[in-house]
Amino acid sequence: MNAEVIAVGSELLLGQIANTNAKFISNQLSELGINVFYHTVVGDNANRLVETIKIAESRADLIIFSGGLGPTKDDLTKETIAKHLNTELIMDEVAIRSIEAFFAKHQQPMTENNRKQALVLKGCDVLENRHGMAPGMLLENDNHTYILLPGPPKELEPMFQFEAKPKLAAKMHDGAVIISHVLRFYGIGEAALEVQVQAILDDQSNPTVAPLASDGEVTLRITAKADDELTAWQLINDKKQQVLALVGDYHYGNDDDSLASKLVERLLDNNLTIAAAESLTAGLFQSELAEVPGVGGTLIGGVVTYTEQAKIEQLGISKDLLDQHSVVSSECAAAMAVQVKKKFQTDIGVGLTGAAGPTGHGNQPAGTVWIAICIGDEQPLTYQLHLSSSRNTNRLRAVKFTYSFLMRELVKSGYKK
Amino acid sequence: MNAEVIAVGSELLLGQIANTNAKFISNQLSELGINVFYHTVVGDNANRLVETIKIAESRADLIIFSGGLGPTKDDLTKETIAKHLNTELIMDEVAIRSIEAFFAKHQQPMTENNRKQALVLKGCDVLENRHGMAPGMLLENDNHTYILLPGPPKELEPMFQFEAKPKLAAKMHDGAVIISHVLRFYGIGEAALEVQVQAILDDQSNPTVAPLASDGEVTLRITAKADDELTAWQLINDKKQQVLALVGDYHYGNDDDSLASKLVERLLDNNLTIAAAESLTAGLFQSELAEVPGVGGTLIGGVVTYTEQAKIEQLGISKDLLDQHSVVSSECAAAMAVQVKKKFQTDIGVGLTGAAGPTGHGNQPAGTVWIAICIGDEQPLTYQLHLSSSRNTNRLRAVKFTYSFLMRELVKSGYKK
Repeated sequence: MNAEVIAVGSELLLGQIANTNAKFISNQLSELGINVFYHTVVGDNANRLVETIKIAESRADLIIFSGGLGPTKDDLTKETIAKHLNTELIMDEVAIRSIEAFFAKHQQPMTENNRKQALVLKGCDVLENRHGMAPGMLLENDNHTYILLPGPPKELEPMFQFEAKPKLAAKMHDGAVIISHVLRFYGIGEAALEVQVQAILDDQSNPTVAPLASDGEVTLRITAKADDELTAWQLINDKKQQVLALVGDYHYGNDDDSLASKLVERLLDNNLTIAAAESLTAGLFQSELAEVPGVGGTLIGGVVTYTEQAKIEQLGISKDLLDQHSVVSSECAAAMAVQVKKKFQTDIGVGLTGAAGPTGHGNQPAGTVWIAICIGDEQPLTYQLHLSSSRNTNRLRAVKFTYSFLMRELVKSGYKK
Repeated sequence: MNAEVIAVGSELLLGQIANTNAKFISNQLSELGINVFYHTVVGDNANRLVETIKIAESRADLIIFSGGLGPTKDDLTKETIAKHLNTELIMDEVAIRSIEAFFAKHQQPMTENNRKQALVLKGCDVLENRHGMAPGMLLENDNHTYILLPGPPKELEPMFQFEAKPKLAAKMHDGAVIISHVLRFYGIGEAALEVQVQAILDDQSNPTVAPLASDGEVTLRITAKADDELTAWQLINDKKQQVLALVGDYHYGNDDDSLASKLVERLLDNNLTIAAAESLTAGLFQSELAEVPGVGGTLIGGVVTYTEQAKIEQLGISKDLLDQHSVVSSECAAAMAVQVKKKFQTDIGVGLTGAAGPTGHGNQPAGTVWIAICIGDEQPLTYQLHLSSSRNTNRLRAVKFTYSFLMRELVKSGYKK
């Protein structure tokens, strides 16, 4: 089975957004062992869309569309496909009830064009939209399979994973599977990691191993192809052991793990509570931790002290200390960690201060960050970063580094309650 | 003149990277007034690339390729085009000298496949690569213009901007420019907005107007085509006035504005300071505000009180109030706003509490959020949201709604110092 992914939307052709849906869908299809030979992007234009569909039908078995299912006039994917296949659109009762319920719940008036979203291709399998109103569709017609997905990634991704993918998996008879497993590392750069696993990277057969860097993390993706899932996973696990024998010290998790999720897991497992005092990151350290469900068992809270005055009044840091060392200093970060720990009566206190940019602070250039962590009754540990990205990338990198710094120290000390 | 953008590379079809080159190139072409009707992605396969080129020749004047110019075996773009056009590849003397110089400088041995990178299509204009080794090409052949660019964005982007774009601009005789302007709205859904501007959407000539929704915001994109920039902007401004006459109440900014940046601007303009007490959002309200440079002039700080105990101890909210109303209540949000305002001695206090999900709180379902704002000496105002997305989308939507709620109340009251 081979596939073509067609994205419909003039905003893509104007260069306003990148076609991340095609990336997501292709990645998912490769896991099923389905080859993708082409991606096409076409605008909100019925004639050009029909031409695109005809070309795709001549070279693909499976055609997956993203976009153009919304309530507005320029959303014309299903209408165009219905006309092209000489079929009609019918009202889906489940979808219309869920749209009506949405408007009732939000106490907003439902307009006629919202009803249009509940129309589906006659004879299709309706794919439930758990994060929006427009349902998706899977239609078999004349040796082709057509899948229609909504454009917003938040709607498309879960719909593909939980609704379309199982149906496709059931259809696959050749049985070949491609499985990828991502190993995540911190505290090591991409080039340095690559040098250490060079022999493995040079031997690129099955599984393949590919490095990738992003936002202060490095990953290695192991991809295996086999007749069945079990064999693919055996291949992956053998390769994984080889990799970890070389760089296991830097390995913190896999696949969808994040530094934040692994840190929360460790804190919960060891019955530790945490609080943070944040200046340049202004709540980002706490907010990213709070993305993890169940964080309430460890994150008690914290303070954002953006101004010097707030550091003095809210945390009781002495004006003398700030005058002598400035707010961008090891001493200030350490005092923030110690004070917030005391104030919230937690096991761990974290302090983050610095100059995110675009301007520096006094004689400290933009990107200078001081991080402090205080674990139990130990003296606070501090660390200085010199970051060189934009304001908000610097803020995010400071937060991610703090997670890895804290994780490393927790592992090292084995601190628990 | 209309264009097709063809990206060559199996890594795109495997879903390992998104086609950001097509986004960049399309954006640049729209500035030149060149319409892009299609993007295509094809793998490192000569036969399928030839088929793709033939289709593109049938529907585009300008065909821009990205990728496949490197030194390895699977780089086959220029070889395939040469064969397809019955022409040959010749060694470019400037390119080969620059490759030799690169290897001399880095004291690395130069291999034979690196020489391959200096081969260019006979008769082309060579496009200099200032950030890598493979030169680009612009070739005129039989009513078509072919542009070949390297795949890595840091090589492709400057090469397009400084080498290809001026040549394309000179070729454009009709001199048309296309300019887009994005209007941003809050407090109104996509379908409801569309109903209000239906007459404008129905009249899709020049400029065109297209709606788009994302993360609790709605935008309208006005796109005008004209002989020169000034005329295009006049067309846009006329259309904008028509739109704002209908839905101006919901308009908060344009183009790269965000709710946070507009709110910070208003607070700074009116000399107002702000502090926030956050529960479910755990610092996200403050952290998103802090993305705006200069926020230190208005954001003093705030507290994250994730647990009930933290609300009592850090904000002095009475246990009786929480027992009577629970932490997910109008009363708790209001107390948080009032107390944090007092604690940080600011002009405005904000309180955010609720159940982000996946689980609810007591008999309150996941997605129930209470927001309170306290402006000056006024009584706090509260607002309840019922969100139905995932945990982190709910958290982000609660924050965005709070920005718009606060902005609306500030505009209404005209409060300043």
